[in-house]
Amino acid sequence: MNNLQDLETVGPKPIWEGVTARIVEGDRITMAVVELSPGGVVPEHGHENEQIGLVIQGRVTFTVGEETRQLGPGGTWRIPSNTPHRVTVGEDGAVVLDIFSPPRSDWQQIDPEAVRRPLWPR
Amino acid sequence: MNNLQDLETVGPKPIWEGVTARIVEGDRITMAVVELSPGGVVPEHGHENEQIGLVIQGRVTFTVGEETRQLGPGGTWRIPSNTPHRVTVGEDGAVVLDIFSPPRSDWQQIDPEAVRRPLWPR
Repeated sequence: MNNLQDLETVGPKPIWEGVTARIVEGDRITMAVVELSPGGVVPEHGHENEQIGLVIQGRVTFTVGEETRQLGPGGTWRIPSNTPHRVTVGEDGAVVLDIFSPPRSDWQQIDPEAVRRPLWPR
Repeated sequence: MNNLQDLETVGPKPIWEGVTARIVEGDRITMAVVELSPGGVVPEHGHENEQIGLVIQGRVTFTVGEETRQLGPGGTWRIPSNTPHRVTVGEDGAVVLDIFSPPRSDWQQIDPEAVRRPLWPR
């Protein structure tokens, strides 16, 4: 078993354009340390997984349902199951922590090459 | 609803001697930003809740089952359900993130006065 590990030994996984995650996965929880590119946008989306998170460094503008707020280090979010949410990243980029339960098993299906492909031409 | 909040507005909750937590609780997850006093010890214990976590600042020596490791910022742990674990805190103290699923509903029963009471005399 390897239950104690340093993040730098966990390979980054591309999730979306400008969004990469280092992931520790358990039976009930996915913990992801997520790097967000400067000025990036995570468009509105939702999922059955409950999500809770925290800004580690940088700034983001976070919308959960009808609430919107600018958050810096120590700013937190709680996203109930199937609640739409979106993020706009500050000009210095951001590192955030995202936690999901149940685990984001759908992330295992992400094709890294598809994420790296430019928006145009496809 | 208040799904977006700054940690500094979340009152610290004493958990054990030298261990206080700022808690964001969901339906399936407890996220706790935990402050650990310099040289403190979280004695071996276990719980049904799965636990995953991360050092934000400082250093700790973490034991999960038979594994022991020194961890600094970016060091992570994954503690399967009912697996014994313990922590010794470095001389500068530490701030860590701990995530639990299911939520630590037992923490709601903690009596802050009992935690603050000295070990002797009781």
